[in-house]
Amino acid sequence: MGEAEAKGLAAKEASRRLAHLSSDVKNRALLAIADNLVSRQQEILWANERDRAEAEASDMAPAMLDRLLLDADRIAGMAQDVRSVAALPDPVGEVFDMRTLPNGLQVGKRRVPLGVIGSVYESRPNVTVDISSLCLKSGNAVLLRGGKEAINSNLALARVLQEAAYAAGVPEGAVQMVESTDRAVVDHMLKMSGVIDLLVPRGGAELVRYVASNASVPVVAGGVGVCHTYVDRSADLEKAVAIVYNAKVQRPTVCNALDTLLVHADIAARYLPLIGREWAKAGVEMHCDEAALQILSDVPSLVLTPASEQDWGKEFLALVAAVKVVGSPDEAIEHIQRYSSGHSEAIVTEDYSVALRFLDEIDAACVYVNASTRFTDGSQFGLGAEVGISTQKLHARGPLGLRELTSYKWIIFGSGQVRP
Amino acid sequence: MGEAEAKGLAAKEASRRLAHLSSDVKNRALLAIADNLVSRQQEILWANERDRAEAEASDMAPAMLDRLLLDADRIAGMAQDVRSVAALPDPVGEVFDMRTLPNGLQVGKRRVPLGVIGSVYESRPNVTVDISSLCLKSGNAVLLRGGKEAINSNLALARVLQEAAYAAGVPEGAVQMVESTDRAVVDHMLKMSGVIDLLVPRGGAELVRYVASNASVPVVAGGVGVCHTYVDRSADLEKAVAIVYNAKVQRPTVCNALDTLLVHADIAARYLPLIGREWAKAGVEMHCDEAALQILSDVPSLVLTPASEQDWGKEFLALVAAVKVVGSPDEAIEHIQRYSSGHSEAIVTEDYSVALRFLDEIDAACVYVNASTRFTDGSQFGLGAEVGISTQKLHARGPLGLRELTSYKWIIFGSGQVRP
Repeated sequence: MGEAEAKGLAAKEASRRLAHLSSDVKNRALLAIADNLVSRQQEILWANERDRAEAEASDMAPAMLDRLLLDADRIAGMAQDVRSVAALPDPVGEVFDMRTLPNGLQVGKRRVPLGVIGSVYESRPNVTVDISSLCLKSGNAVLLRGGKEAINSNLALARVLQEAAYAAGVPEGAVQMVESTDRAVVDHMLKMSGVIDLLVPRGGAELVRYVASNASVPVVAGGVGVCHTYVDRSADLEKAVAIVYNAKVQRPTVCNALDTLLVHADIAARYLPLIGREWAKAGVEMHCDEAALQILSDVPSLVLTPASEQDWGKEFLALVAAVKVVGSPDEAIEHIQRYSSGHSEAIVTEDYSVALRFLDEIDAACVYVNASTRFTDGSQFGLGAEVGISTQKLHARGPLGLRELTSYKWIIFGSGQVRP
Repeated sequence: MGEAEAKGLAAKEASRRLAHLSSDVKNRALLAIADNLVSRQQEILWANERDRAEAEASDMAPAMLDRLLLDADRIAGMAQDVRSVAALPDPVGEVFDMRTLPNGLQVGKRRVPLGVIGSVYESRPNVTVDISSLCLKSGNAVLLRGGKEAINSNLALARVLQEAAYAAGVPEGAVQMVESTDRAVVDHMLKMSGVIDLLVPRGGAELVRYVASNASVPVVAGGVGVCHTYVDRSADLEKAVAIVYNAKVQRPTVCNALDTLLVHADIAARYLPLIGREWAKAGVEMHCDEAALQILSDVPSLVLTPASEQDWGKEFLALVAAVKVVGSPDEAIEHIQRYSSGHSEAIVTEDYSVALRFLDEIDAACVYVNASTRFTDGSQFGLGAEVGISTQKLHARGPLGLRELTSYKWIIFGSGQVRP
């Protein structure tokens, strides 16, 4: 039996008791984890140093190196996130849709954990803590497989999590971290039907696609965001500058950042120079269609490139945006429907009917009117935290919080009823 | 391009407009379908006669032949079911979990159709009408592939459905029926990612397993029911006889019928003869463990067989039940957890704490106290109808009604918010 399978089975075993653990014990365990992350930070930092030394030796890009870095602040931030999860209401046991049928049967649904959540993820070690704490709170065991580049950090974090949780009464085995960095482990996890109840890949588009197309276990895939913002002819241009600037610049390397800006032709000549100048200050490179190029070519100090077909539907994850002038809301909606990855799409408009049409017709996890797509996030939406963002329609869509890590069972209270 | 693919793409195209169709048009279409099923019943009955002639020629079992049969009564029943679906509330467009965040963003979820529902099913032609009407009501297009033995009936039904629906304003292409009876079509449908948004297999265990393990499109699998009823020492024996009799006898060929009866040792000597005699009148054969055999061997006119290991966890779909005496609720729960298919499980007890424990600990789609497992059904649960019964935990569990054919999107009403 391989390591992943042995640990998966141990997680499955633990999940049976974890499902019935009281909220009190789970919350005590989460607070103990938060405390121990801080009090044992030295061993985490040492492990992280080893990862970073290896990463530097292998010439890792500075942005990736930064994602790998742990320091006292970041560990304090992780501990704070765990405390936030402890403070959230426990989803397990919630009874809903309960009603009494004409025959007297009382029928309803009770929320239950899924069982074992698997996760395959890259780079940032805080994912280890995020996913573990959300799974613990929702009564799920977890089988983690982090990236090779963060293996020492992840193992140190897992050790702290496990020891704190088990000492607080969480069934042993509830948190499992695969030690092997062999790529074959991932392939093995993808096929662990009956052990892994839900697999959540977190990482680049390539990893997510690989997992989604090769897994025989249930997967919630997402995280690839080709996000459009359409500035309508009726837009408040000041709001439109603030929203589009924020959507691109506030954190360009993430999935909910703007990729393509669509602007109505009637206001393009006024709006594009406004946003262009702001973006230029932040170093944004604009890949423009012909109409946008014509408008912007006179504006000094912009970085302009003619857009190619490859720019539409591209997730840039950088200070680059594709820009297109459209003749109507219809053209904008058509463009979005064609190129959207179903993540987050926005319109800026003061036209009530156009706003409602956009909300109706755009088929994406999150559809915005007059706000930045950067809000697509479990914490921002008030879910407390998230294990990922789903761009599929089945099971859950958008940010995956505690509730999305659960299922339900029908419970039926009878008094002797039989079916006629 | 194969037939399934061409029809799938046509369904996809139709689904985009169907998603925004008003409840009025959908309901008018459903009522027109109901009317036309009755007014055009002669062409349906002729087609059904051809199917039955072929089935008789191929020596089909009488039970199967009966499932295939359509007559005026059954068609009237189908029409009535369609009218019931029309009378249900439209799930599409429902807004829920809406709230205003501290920054003024109004964030909520709006229910949307899934897109294209595929279904691969066997035998009973009424499935064609059931699934089509539920999909139509929930704004989904449908790609159907019925069993070879019912191909003429299914095509006739689909023709009536299509013509009535399209005349009433449903986008053409919304209801698609594959004409080819080539088995390869099923394999093709299993791989139609990006076209089929959800595939629901309906039929025997073999079909369901085949679809679940070979599909790359999302599947909600279920319908295999190994159902236990545990009669506790504190059970009201009269209720226990009525419930257990009903669960086995009322319709033995379906997934929610009883397969294994577990009886507490303290009452086995009193209870088993009572249920044994009732079952015997209905022709139920009992596969008994040693303890049950000993108790029942004196009772006249029972059909008893010693149980073998294969009897536990077996779905009989016939007037056969496995019977086992257990020493405690723990032993009953353990047995069920080991052999359950996660469909429907019941306890008969007057002991409050044992009842709650059973509801807590049994992990199945439907968990009953003091009622027959035969109630696991969309209509019985007040969902109006069902496209199937899910025994998986992801997306939906138990009867799949209109709501389970939908997803949601997050809708966000802003007034210029940007992320700090």
